[in-house]
Order: sequence, then structure tokens, then C-alpha cells
Amino acid sequence: MSIRHEDPPEPPLELIYRPRSIAVVGAHEQRGGLGRITQQAIDKARSVGGTFHPVNPTKTQVHGYDCVPDLASVGVPIDVAVILTANPIGVIEDAADAGVKVGFYVVFANGFSEVGTEEGREKEERLLRAVRRAGSRLIGPNTNGNAWEPLLPLPGKKIALVSQSGVQGRPLTQAQELGVALSYWAPTGNETDLESSDFIEWFTQDPGTAVVCAYIEGFRSGQKLRSAAIAAVERGKPIVAVKIGRSVAGSAMAQSHTGHLAGSDEVFDAFFEQYGITRVDDLDEWVEVATALARCPVPTADGVVISSVSGGTAAHLADLAAAAGLHLPELSPGTRAALHEIIPREFSVSNPVDNGGGIMRTGAGPKIWELCLNDPHIGLLLSPIPAASPGLTEAVGETIVEVARLSNKPILPIWSGPSADHPTYRLLWEAGLPVFRNFRNALAAAKSLLGHPARNEETREVVRLARSLPPLTSSPGAVTTLEENEATGWLEKRGLRFARHELAANVDEAVARAEDIGFPVVLKGRGAAHKTERGFVVTGLTDGAAVRAAAGRLLGDGATGLLVARQESGGVELLVGIAQDDVLGPVIVVGSGGVTAEAVRDVQRSVLPLTAQRAHTMISRLRIAPLLDGWRGAPPVDREAIVETLLLLSRIAAEGEVVELDVNPLLARPDGAIGLDALVRLRESGREQAR
Amino acid sequence: MSIRHEDPPEPPLELIYRPRSIAVVGAHEQRGGLGRITQQAIDKARSVGGTFHPVNPTKTQVHGYDCVPDLASVGVPIDVAVILTANPIGVIEDAADAGVKVGFYVVFANGFSEVGTEEGREKEERLLRAVRRAGSRLIGPNTNGNAWEPLLPLPGKKIALVSQSGVQGRPLTQAQELGVALSYWAPTGNETDLESSDFIEWFTQDPGTAVVCAYIEGFRSGQKLRSAAIAAVERGKPIVAVKIGRSVAGSAMAQSHTGHLAGSDEVFDAFFEQYGITRVDDLDEWVEVATALARCPVPTADGVVISSVSGGTAAHLADLAAAAGLHLPELSPGTRAALHEIIPREFSVSNPVDNGGGIMRTGAGPKIWELCLNDPHIGLLLSPIPAASPGLTEAVGETIVEVARLSNKPILPIWSGPSADHPTYRLLWEAGLPVFRNFRNALAAAKSLLGHPARNEETREVVRLARSLPPLTSSPGAVTTLEENEATGWLEKRGLRFARHELAANVDEAVARAEDIGFPVVLKGRGAAHKTERGFVVTGLTDGAAVRAAAGRLLGDGATGLLVARQESGGVELLVGIAQDDVLGPVIVVGSGGVTAEAVRDVQRSVLPLTAQRAHTMISRLRIAPLLDGWRGAPPVDREAIVETLLLLSRIAAEGEVVELDVNPLLARPDGAIGLDALVRLRESGREQAR
Repeated sequence: MSIRHEDPPEPPLELIYRPRSIAVVGAHEQRGGLGRITQQAIDKARSVGGTFHPVNPTKTQVHGYDCVPDLASVGVPIDVAVILTANPIGVIEDAADAGVKVGFYVVFANGFSEVGTEEGREKEERLLRAVRRAGSRLIGPNTNGNAWEPLLPLPGKKIALVSQSGVQGRPLTQAQELGVALSYWAPTGNETDLESSDFIEWFTQDPGTAVVCAYIEGFRSGQKLRSAAIAAVERGKPIVAVKIGRSVAGSAMAQSHTGHLAGSDEVFDAFFEQYGITRVDDLDEWVEVATALARCPVPTADGVVISSVSGGTAAHLADLAAAAGLHLPELSPGTRAALHEIIPREFSVSNPVDNGGGIMRTGAGPKIWELCLNDPHIGLLLSPIPAASPGLTEAVGETIVEVARLSNKPILPIWSGPSADHPTYRLLWEAGLPVFRNFRNALAAAKSLLGHPARNEETREVVRLARSLPPLTSSPGAVTTLEENEATGWLEKRGLRFARHELAANVDEAVARAEDIGFPVVLKGRGAAHKTERGFVVTGLTDGAAVRAAAGRLLGDGATGLLVARQESGGVELLVGIAQDDVLGPVIVVGSGGVTAEAVRDVQRSVLPLTAQRAHTMISRLRIAPLLDGWRGAPPVDREAIVETLLLLSRIAAEGEVVELDVNPLLARPDGAIGLDALVRLRESGREQAR
Repeated sequence: MSIRHEDPPEPPLELIYRPRSIAVVGAHEQRGGLGRITQQAIDKARSVGGTFHPVNPTKTQVHGYDCVPDLASVGVPIDVAVILTANPIGVIEDAADAGVKVGFYVVFANGFSEVGTEEGREKEERLLRAVRRAGSRLIGPNTNGNAWEPLLPLPGKKIALVSQSGVQGRPLTQAQELGVALSYWAPTGNETDLESSDFIEWFTQDPGTAVVCAYIEGFRSGQKLRSAAIAAVERGKPIVAVKIGRSVAGSAMAQSHTGHLAGSDEVFDAFFEQYGITRVDDLDEWVEVATALARCPVPTADGVVISSVSGGTAAHLADLAAAAGLHLPELSPGTRAALHEIIPREFSVSNPVDNGGGIMRTGAGPKIWELCLNDPHIGLLLSPIPAASPGLTEAVGETIVEVARLSNKPILPIWSGPSADHPTYRLLWEAGLPVFRNFRNALAAAKSLLGHPARNEETREVVRLARSLPPLTSSPGAVTTLEENEATGWLEKRGLRFARHELAANVDEAVARAEDIGFPVVLKGRGAAHKTERGFVVTGLTDGAAVRAAAGRLLGDGATGLLVARQESGGVELLVGIAQDDVLGPVIVVGSGGVTAEAVRDVQRSVLPLTAQRAHTMISRLRIAPLLDGWRGAPPVDREAIVETLLLLSRIAAEGEVVELDVNPLLARPDGAIGLDALVRLRESGREQAR
């Protein structure tokens, strides 16, 4: 991507929503389509006390406002200039030439990078250059009028929405019909200049906004994204994001749609997890998880309880909840005893709590739900509503509404039937609860609530550390690859242990070095890539004669020199390293190592900053993790040493010199971790230090 | 589970739904609860021209019918006797003593195995004994009156439903409100006698039933399940199942709920996949996938096309579709040219097809959707409906309805908004289409339609082969473990290649055998388990002296004899074997082998029969699969030899002698597959053959 991102000083985004003046280039009175935008602009200007300026050389008036032929003729500074015409670049260039001051341009035209052609990309660059020259900021191109669509004045904590695609944001705004309150909608289109992250960060400042929802096809600036994520955690505003890129095919299409760098999806997953952002895949999940975060109190304990009128439903939900990693603790003996005073003995009250349904006729419902919620281990209650069972549906719905009114713990009701044309369904929404249409969405919401930034210590630690990271920059410039002995030396200086090794120029030196180091040794021929495949690595040399023979052969085969290393053994072969993501910068990697590493792809990733807790999590998630803990009678390896190595790499990555780094294998043993081989690629500027 | 399953000759299940006579023990006139059952029984008897017989010693009449005090006094053979009272065992025993003929008992009482106590399980065994003695069949206990609930007389192909839990079946019956037609509902409760599989198999015979839906907490009889699955494939009736057991916690609860053997969940996944059964997790997914199968034609090609008014929506859906493994082919040049005659050039018509929305105002919608569907690569069309966008929602909905009327390919419309209170939503249902509430459900339905038994050759091959498998039986009885050399010999006789090996009683014999075999050799001490951990395996012996030394040590350390084997090397270490599932019988396993096999758990499973295609799939799904195809310049291994080995194991498994079998490692090499070690456990009856 050659478009540059040195952002100019920014007019406050507030002005997009409360403009003192709006100009619409190409304003007209037709109904529907772009004509609707003209009307929305007039309404917006009126509602915030701003001025409206139609720009159209072919008209004298639009909806009673006097037309001017061009932006230069508006005569006052313009907070927002909307361009509905097909040639926005010309309009912006002319205005810039005339010295017109415009805060934000909003460009509707399409045919830019989203077409996927070189022509489209060039046109988009020209557009950005024009905007930069004008000293303005840009929303779009390929955007729409959603920002000025009136939102319903609903009570309750609000959701702010940013969506690259207007159609994809629509389901969330449609949730207003169910009573879900929204604070803002930012449609960003191609995000040539202003992108989702700009709006996310700004939304988190709004006192009325409790949750930020984002529909994103790709991020341009990792730095802006990280800054937005930090702001969201610090201000206790969770982010719920749909991000394209689950498949290679899909992300290719996203790229052709908005010309974005997609980044690697797994790295985004790591980023989202580390910074406490909830990623969802489906739009219904997006709406329902966000609604839960806006409507529920923050849980005060990790335990989840299921209360149901059906043992079958309870077993089903408990099965999926456990598979989703939620913790369903036993209820305390006191809670169970109290429940069994109400619920007949033949029903289970362990968790899930199955009251059998019959008891609901006695009015005991609220007491049962209350007892579940008041248990000290419980932070959240899942409550399936039986699908339109006469009497039972109403009883459970009314119970939930009654209990929710008094409780300070989240209650998540799940509507089970395919049809929601039912008074109880409406009752639950009107009571200010979130309502779920399937178990999956409710479980995703439960996980999101339990990991809420306001209570997630790990996320808050990440954000504290992230504050002192250097900014994320883009392309590394010229890169140099260190020789193997330089690479190990560079890493040893920084505290990583390697198998003892020495250079040797000839056969005699090789034998002498081997005797210094102690047998068995490995001999490597220098001056060739793909050493293993070329037979340039000889292992298992147990005496001087063997070293002499091998050294002779390697030099005869064209090695330019030799490296003699102590042959270390035992333990588990890992790979650790640093990679670079185009958007998110340095990525710390740990995986199953050795020559098969790339085949088996047993790898975990983290972006910066890396906490010790995260490093432990990465190691535990490796499929080979059981081998680390004393497999078949072997002594357990030193996990702390692996964690320390990863933390060391994260410090190195933060310094910014390293473009790419591999230690493979890193031998994890009971006595620590020791590297056997290394690759280090540095920015040219870091080259000097390697010497 | 000690309850026996020798099923007596069966009265046709038809009689449950069209009984010639019904008796209700404990009949009464109270409204609601069990009183409702009495009324349902009366209505059922009337509707099918059967007789109704209330049984209640405390009443003279119920709803105008004369009461009798006990079943013996009914005086006619009873097709269905419903027991509402708390002591069903006594009722059944008394009737059996009196020689009363009852086809089916339906038992509502709970407090049996679902409580999870020994007392409950014993009570359930006594119930089954009483039913067996009476020569009757049993539905329940812990069941309900759902079987006789009137179903709406709706047009279209029908769904038959079996659900252990009544509440969990309810969402599907509630789909009748949306126009989804049902043929039967079988509520099975604890499934002490008749179980889900009995009903599934019977449903497949019904000409009006197109799809079978099952909500299952566990299966008792693998044989019945397999028989039902075969019938479903042969009759072209797909099964959509929710089965508890995704988590260990969940399946433990399912067990306590209905006292079932849960079986291993991964083995069930293999069974479902091999026999073409669609497994879903959520109830909304269940309803929507089943509806698609009932309402859509069977696809005639594998390709999926997405047609959308929004590039954003298209990219999102395409991303998830590709991640779900669906195939989105390029449209043919002819289709693309024709589309671009309608759709402006700046929109993508490759697949997904994004028409930009504006074009919908011109009435071009149906032509676009038709062109997509008529492409020869396309078997199915996914069509997101933009969430309540004035004009656009209606236009897309009407387009779909118009095109679906003429097309013989499935069209899956996806409703995107959280609220479905919209005329277009109703229009789509009324047009006989399935309607989806999220992408996930639509993608699951697409996969299910594309794998429909009527077009799935692999599934049909499985079913052809399954017809000649021996019946699945339960516990293996007494088991014997072969000595290692017996095990390898037993397998060699059946065609598996092993590294050359010989027994030796003493040091001299060991040296002589090693010289015969050729160096290097491995020496193993006999008479001990966990040989590796005990140091009873010595590798890398390259001459007679080394063998002599190692043999002496092993015999000194307590080995009762020696085994000398050629040390084979190279290739990739696999594990292959046979395991036994409590319900589904023999399981063929292939995985990453060697001493770390159990740690890394890189394993694929299949039940019988195993086809060559499935064996190839199992191998390709291994995470280590890339190592088989020539990793880092190594020659590719002989995959056919691994497939042949798995097929050999499947024939051995089908013979029924083997209880458990491991070959680990199996060395997969370019020159074939060779076993290095084996474990074989046989039923005692198979012991003789091992000699």
C-alpha cells in the first residue's frame, strides 16, 4: 500500500455529528437515492443549529435554500462538505485552489480501490492527495449518509457503531426497533483517510456510549487500532467486532472490496484476545453480544449458573457451555439446600438447576432464580425460555423480569422457538434485558461479559504495558540477514543461551575447537543456505578423528568455513521467534520446533506487549504441551525458562531493530532452555550492533 | 448398563399414531397437566376411529366414557395403554398376571434412571422386566403426551421428529406457525425400551416424510442406530440431529438425565459424517437446516453462488462460506458477460455477485438471480436479504420468490435483521422457502443439501457395504492380550508387514538371530510391560558384540527372554489401530505415531465400514499429513500402503475377534508401510487362532 498515513492535525470528529455548516455538492430534490442525502443534510443542519449550503451550478434553489455553483462560493468555513457528484477529486482540487476551508469531505462516489484494479487504486491515491493538500479529512469514498440518519431517542446505555459497509451496519440500527439504544453510526467506506479505529477511539470518550460495535473489512494502521483498543480498555468500553478474513478467499474479496491489507487473521485473533476485543462472526451474534454488554451489569464472579424448567434443555445448554470453556461451578451447599426446599428431590439442583417446570405454577420461580443468582460462586445466569409452551413461557419470562429488576448480576434469557411473535418476547426486551435467539450467541455474550475490560486484570495489564510501546510503523526498509554465528552471538549478548560453539577456518582448528567444547559435537559448513538439505550439518561426532573426517568433507564440498557446536540433547524441541505483521507489527511466536515445524504448524502467536501470563497461555495451548510436563516418566521441562525466552523476544521486538527472528530448535529441558540454531534479520540501521 | 435389549416381536409403531384402542390408567377430567393427556387420548381415539377406555377405580365416568377399575376390566385388546399414575410397574405386572394384551405402554412417571441413583436404575430395570413379561413394548418412562398433539395440516414435504425431551422438541413443532409441515412427533423419554433409532427407521418408511429430526441425549443400541441410518440413506431421507455430548461435563449430565451410555463424541462425529447425518448444535440451526432439506430440491452441482445487493455483505458471507469449506466457483464467462450487460462495470460479478443495489429499482433482479442459478457450475444460491432497508428488502424478497418459483435449484435466503416483523419475511416463508436468521445456519444447510443422501455417492457406498457387516454387539466378554511376537505374527498372517524379528532365549541365540537378520538391530527384553520406560528396549546395535552386551544386561535385569528385530528407519511414524466404542463398536484409528502419540493426539477415527475414500480423507486430515508428501526434499511416502493397512484393519475389525489393536509405530515410507511394534487383544474365543 503506497498511500501514506501521516495524518494532519485533526478537526474534532464531533463536528461530523454537530456541524456548524454543511455543504452538499450535487444537491438536488429528487426523492430517494442521493436525493435523500440532501434532505438528511438539511435535517441535520437544522437539528444542530448549523447552516446548509446546496452546491449545484444547474440550480438556483434546493428545498428553498439558495444554490451556489461551487464550494468557493459558499463564503463561510465548511465543517462538512458532502460530495454526491461523480468527480470528487476535481471538486476538492478546485476548492483547495480557491483556499476554501473544509473540515471533512464525505465522498459517495465509488470506482476506487474497491474495484480491485490498478486504475482504481491510483484514483484513490489522487483523492487522498487532494484531501491532504486541502488540509481536510476524508470519509469514504464509497460511503453513504448513515452518519446523519436520525437515531431513536431510547433510554439505557448506548452502542456506538462504525461500519465500513452501510448494509452490514443496518441490522444493528434495526435493533432500535427492539429498544436497543444507539449513540452514533459512522459509515467509513473505503477508509482512505479516516478509518474505523479513529471512530472507535472517539466513541470511547462519549459518556453515553457503553459499547462500541465495529464491522471491519481490514485495518490500515495498526498504530491507530492499538490506540483505539487501549482507549476502550482504559475507559471500560468493550468493543464487539466482526472482521472479514476467516478464509483466504474471503479476505481476498475484502481486499478487492476496499483495497485493504488484510493482515494475517490469526494475528488479529491474538490482538483481539490480548486487548479484550470480542470478535464474532455472524451479524445476529454481533447484535446480541453487544446488546448484552450494553444492558447487563458487569459480573462479579466467574461462575455461570443455568436455571431451567427442563432437564433436557439444561443438559443441552450445559454441554455447549462447558464446550465453550465457561465455568459451571457446583452451587454452595446452602444454595442447594434452599433450592431443595422448593424443588422436588427428583430434580437436579447441582448446576444446571432443573426445577421440572411443574413448580412454576406455584409462584416459586423468582425464589429459585434468586437463590441461583445469590450463590457466591455465581457471576451470571443463563435462562432458556421454553418455546411457546402455554403458561410456562409466560411464567419463566415474568420470573426473569422480576428477578432482573432486583439483581446486580447479568441474566441472559434465551428464546428457544423459531417464531418470536409472542408477548413474553416483547416483555423481555422492554424490561431492558438482552434476548438471545440461540445458545451460541448467549454463550458468546457470557464469555464477553465475564471478560469485560472493567474486570479483566490481564487485559488491563496489557494496556498498561502497551502505553510505553514505541509506535507501530510500516515497512522495514532495507533488511540484512546475520550469519548464523553472528545471529547466535547477537542473541547471546541479549541473554539467550545457545549450545557452546566456535568458528574454525580449517580441519585442524575444527578438531581443536571440538576438543575445547567437549564431545559429542555438531559440525556445520558455512557459506550455504539450506544446510540440512545440502548435507552441511553433521551430527553425532564423538571424537577428534570423526571431526577431522567430517571437516575435510565439508570443506571439500565447498563450505567456506566451519562452525563447531556442542551437541545438546534431551528435552523438547520448540521454535520461538519474531515475525512481522503488515498491520500489527511484531508478532511473538512459539511452536513445536525442529525440521517438521512448518509442516505440523503447532504454533501460538501474540502481538506486543507480551505478559508473562500470556506467554504461559501460549505454551499451554500448544498441542505438544503435554510433552513439556514429564511425558512417560521424563522430568518436566523448565516452563519458566520458555516464558523468560518469550519475554526476552518481546523486549527485543519492541526495540524495533529486528524484522524477523527464529530460534529453531530451542531445546526446552529440565535445566532451562537452550538454542541450537538462529536466524536474525535486522533493519539496516541495526546492523552495526551485530558486529 | 445391565438392561437387556433382546427386543420381542414388535407391533407396528403405526399403532401408536393410529391406535384401534386406547386405555388411560389414572384418567381424569382436571384441566391442564396430566388431565390434558386424557383429553388428547379421547381426541386421538375419535380422530382415528379407535375406542377409548378410562381406567380409574375412583371414578365411574370420565368425559362421558364409562370407567373400569383396572386394565384387566377393559375387555378388549389394547393397542396403547397410557399410565399416568405413580406406580406403573404394579399396573403392568397386574395386567400381565391377568393376561391382558397391550401393544404399547406409555409411562409418564419419572424417578427412574434419569435421577442418577442406583435405586432409580434398578426401578427402571424392573419396569422393563414387567413390560417384557407382558409381551408389550414401552415408550418412556419420563415421557409425555407429545405423540398425540395435533399437528397442523400444512402443505409441502414433511419433517418427522423424535425427541427425548419434550421441551427440546417444541421449537421444531413451533415452526408450524411459520408453515413448516410436520408428519410425526415421537417423545421417547428415558428410552428404556423403544429408542430414537426405532422411530427414525420407521419414519423413513413414511412417504409424506422427507426429513427426520432427532434430539438425542445418547444412544443405547449401536445396531439400531446403524440400521436406522442405513434406512435413511437408502430411502433418501436426510437426518438432522442434535446430540448431547460436546463436552465431558455435558455428557455426564445427559447420562444422569436419561441414564444413557454417552459413547465418545468424536466417534459419533465420525459415524454421523460417514452415514451422511447432519449434526447441529443449536436448536435454531436444527429447525432451519431441517426446513431447508424439506423445502429445497436436491442440488445438481457442488458450486455455491452468492448474489447480493451489497459488496460488504457478499464479502462477509463469502468469507464464512469459504471457511466452512463450501466451494464458490468462478462463474462461466458466458454468465459473467450476461451479468455485466445488466450490472454496472464497477461491481464484481465473479462470485460473489454484487449488483450494488441501485439496479434493483429497474426490475432487473430476477434476471440477475436467474443467470446466477443457471450457471452450470452452480448447485445452490445464497441470498442475503438486507435488513429492513425500505424498498431494497422488498425488492430482494420478491426477486427470490419469483425466481424460486421457476428454479429447480435450492435458494437460501438469509434474513439479516434482528427483528423479523416484516411482510417480506412472511412472504418468503409463505412461498415455501426456508428462511435463515444468520449466515451460520444457512451455511450449515448448504453443506447438508450438498451432501444430501440422494446425491452423496460416498454415503451410498458406505451404506451398501454396511449391509453386509455383522451386527453390533455389546460387551466383549473375556479378553486376552497376545505377547508381542504373537501379535506381530497374528497380523503378519493377515497381511501386515513387520520389521523382521526373531525370539531368542539367551545371549548366544540373540547374537545368532541378529546376524541372520542383519544389523542394525533392536533388542527387546520380554516379560515386562512399559518396556521403553524400564529400559527394556535397546536400539542402534550395530554388531554382535553390542548385541551380546545388551542381551546380557536385559536378562540380568529380569527379562524372561529376548526379541531381536531389524532396526528400520526413515519415513514417518504413524499409529494405526482398532478401538471399541461402547455403542458404535469397532473404530479404525490413524494418527501421528511413536512414543508421543498420546500426547499430541493427532488422530482421525472411522467406524465400519471403512471405504478407501474415507481412509484417504482420514490421512489427509492428519496435522502431520504434509510430512507424508515429501517434506523438505524427502521422497513422498506410499499413501496407498497406509490406506491398504487401514482397510486391512477394517476387515479384521469386522471379523469381530479383535477387541483392541495398535500398531505403533507404523513406519510409512516410500517403499510401503512397515510395523515396528504391535498390541493385540482378542476375545477369548479368538485366542486359538493366534497360536
